[in-house]
Amino acid sequence: MMYFDNAATTYPKPPQVRLAVADALNRLGANPGRGGYPMALQTAEAVFACREELAAFFGLSEPANVCFTPNCTAALGTVIKGVLRDGGHAVISCLEHNSVIRPISALPNVTYTEAAVYAGDDERTVESFRRAIQPNTKLVLCTHASNVLGVRLPVEKLGALAQKRGILFAVDAAQSAGILPLDMERDGIDFLCLPGHKALYGPMGSGALLCRRETAIPPLTEGGTGSASLKAEQPTELPDRFESGTVNVPAICGLCAGVRFLKSHGIGAVAQKEIALMRRLYEAVAGERGITVYTPYPDLAVTVPMVTLNVGLLSSEETAALLAQDGVAVRAGLHCAPSAHRCIATLDRGAVRLCPSCFTTTEMVDKTAKILCKIARKNLQSRDSMLQ
Amino acid sequence: MMYFDNAATTYPKPPQVRLAVADALNRLGANPGRGGYPMALQTAEAVFACREELAAFFGLSEPANVCFTPNCTAALGTVIKGVLRDGGHAVISCLEHNSVIRPISALPNVTYTEAAVYAGDDERTVESFRRAIQPNTKLVLCTHASNVLGVRLPVEKLGALAQKRGILFAVDAAQSAGILPLDMERDGIDFLCLPGHKALYGPMGSGALLCRRETAIPPLTEGGTGSASLKAEQPTELPDRFESGTVNVPAICGLCAGVRFLKSHGIGAVAQKEIALMRRLYEAVAGERGITVYTPYPDLAVTVPMVTLNVGLLSSEETAALLAQDGVAVRAGLHCAPSAHRCIATLDRGAVRLCPSCFTTTEMVDKTAKILCKIARKNLQSRDSMLQ
Repeated sequence: MMYFDNAATTYPKPPQVRLAVADALNRLGANPGRGGYPMALQTAEAVFACREELAAFFGLSEPANVCFTPNCTAALGTVIKGVLRDGGHAVISCLEHNSVIRPISALPNVTYTEAAVYAGDDERTVESFRRAIQPNTKLVLCTHASNVLGVRLPVEKLGALAQKRGILFAVDAAQSAGILPLDMERDGIDFLCLPGHKALYGPMGSGALLCRRETAIPPLTEGGTGSASLKAEQPTELPDRFESGTVNVPAICGLCAGVRFLKSHGIGAVAQKEIALMRRLYEAVAGERGITVYTPYPDLAVTVPMVTLNVGLLSSEETAALLAQDGVAVRAGLHCAPSAHRCIATLDRGAVRLCPSCFTTTEMVDKTAKILCKIARKNLQSRDSMLQ
Repeated sequence: MMYFDNAATTYPKPPQVRLAVADALNRLGANPGRGGYPMALQTAEAVFACREELAAFFGLSEPANVCFTPNCTAALGTVIKGVLRDGGHAVISCLEHNSVIRPISALPNVTYTEAAVYAGDDERTVESFRRAIQPNTKLVLCTHASNVLGVRLPVEKLGALAQKRGILFAVDAAQSAGILPLDMERDGIDFLCLPGHKALYGPMGSGALLCRRETAIPPLTEGGTGSASLKAEQPTELPDRFESGTVNVPAICGLCAGVRFLKSHGIGAVAQKEIALMRRLYEAVAGERGITVYTPYPDLAVTVPMVTLNVGLLSSEETAALLAQDGVAVRAGLHCAPSAHRCIATLDRGAVRLCPSCFTTTEMVDKTAKILCKIARKNLQSRDSMLQ
């Protein structure tokens, strides 16, 4: 299989990650932060080690401010439902995922404005966010990079804008965590939401909400934390505030191993390799008659490594099915991000998204490009024969 | 290590469970319900197989009504925050965990009444629930068995009561799922909340909310579901309504293997074995001078397999630390359930809880009983020598 659905979940996982999960299941089977016996303490240490890795990786001085979540969606939901619980206005980008659109839409007395994004023109993007801010704006939230177009947003400049206006700033790093550098302090990010199972190479079930400071927003739900158990109120301290019930120790250990794996290869080196692969793919297919590429030319200054396209007038699902026949795994459809598809006028048929990981090879890219061109030519031929 | 903290998380996990997690990481690496390529379809099938296992196991006709959650707390929070979102009254038992107390307490305009529980006297327990019902009661929620006292509640009779009064009925099966038989249809349970990582032998990170019918309550947070992506509203269908973002495939596959493991041994046989072990422990320590046992005599008609005790006037943490020195792993403290500790007047020092799994042996029980008696005698001696 030539797997290009890495924007959904990276596959395969590094051997270190699989070993860490197995080791946690074998050896770290106790609830961390509850029991006082050796296995419980060792488990708590392993969980804390992952907090330390993530804090250091994302420019956060306090490891306790790393809160584990089951996925990026839960982290985003916590921020959105927390900051806007009493109503208000939010500024988001025009490229947001349903993990942002749906919780914002579900909140009563909340309005939001979608700011336009201009690929490669940061100043214009920042200006569109600036104009979208209203007196009652409580939250600026944007994806770091679109999960459909790969286009990156100037989060450091948007962070400065939000900070200047005294507005909380949250970033959805679903497509960038592990690929683009992020530093919460430097970039002025109050809340960083990330999946563990994408470019950080952790297992599904891992995710995190990183908070720059202690925060007053409530969790999605309260529960047992092993701390202050006499109180009917949720503890206010991080990470307990956002971590009710038993945490997912195997996934957290796997995520820790994933971050270490990535660090051992160098985050910059992996991103450079991946962007080169996507350039190669782009160059091989963008000129092909019958293929429409929607993503900009791959360039880390503008995009994360991703190529999104359609073939002829085929629906994205038809193209994906033809690719699957030849062993290529891609995601078709709307990728849970209708706003982005509105920008490229593909709401009716979606698009085919290809995204590499550090395990993707030149051979896989070349073979996939050939298969795509073959599908495009066949499609043109059948159209021509139908026209005759 | 003699592990008796199985009420928190069962350890070890069956080899089948560890293999299923590893296999999922190796072979089922795609997001289920999104892609159309073979691995995505195989992953979706594996996830659906777990829904089928759980539905059949808990008397639910529709596997799609099995919704995966990261733990039991998230399932309870979904029910509590959903049913009581516009205020109202709830009846709960006097033995609830903070996973119930804390979310109920956090809701505005919600009041609740704690109904007394009478171990072994179901009629009296039902009567106390009946009297607690008010005209604005929207939810009856109780644990199936106390996580401190092991005492079981007559959920089938409470289900009948709630149904008769037209009130939704939810059960926290944290301590009973996999031990006591449960049938949602027969027992009139509208919402069943369960952890995967306790007596169902799945990994941490697994849990589920089972809904007897389609329901109108909103999720804790909305997000991408891979379905109806054009809509800013969360899909109403189960399980999508409650499963936003990438689900935890390795944990779900592990949970499926756990349920199959349990079925292969017979749920009744495992429970019988465990209750016999706890009787043995009870009989060995209950008569010992200086040991106070709080749990009733182990009997599946009255309790789940569990013995909770204290030694002399030692704090529960001191006793647990002494046990740990001799290789016995137990949970001390309040077990996130202060109400239950109020019943046995141990709010000041907590209690030591011992709970077996199917992997617990007679030898482990006998050895642990001896160690407990040794601690009790030493404690009496040191007290006596201090008094002299």
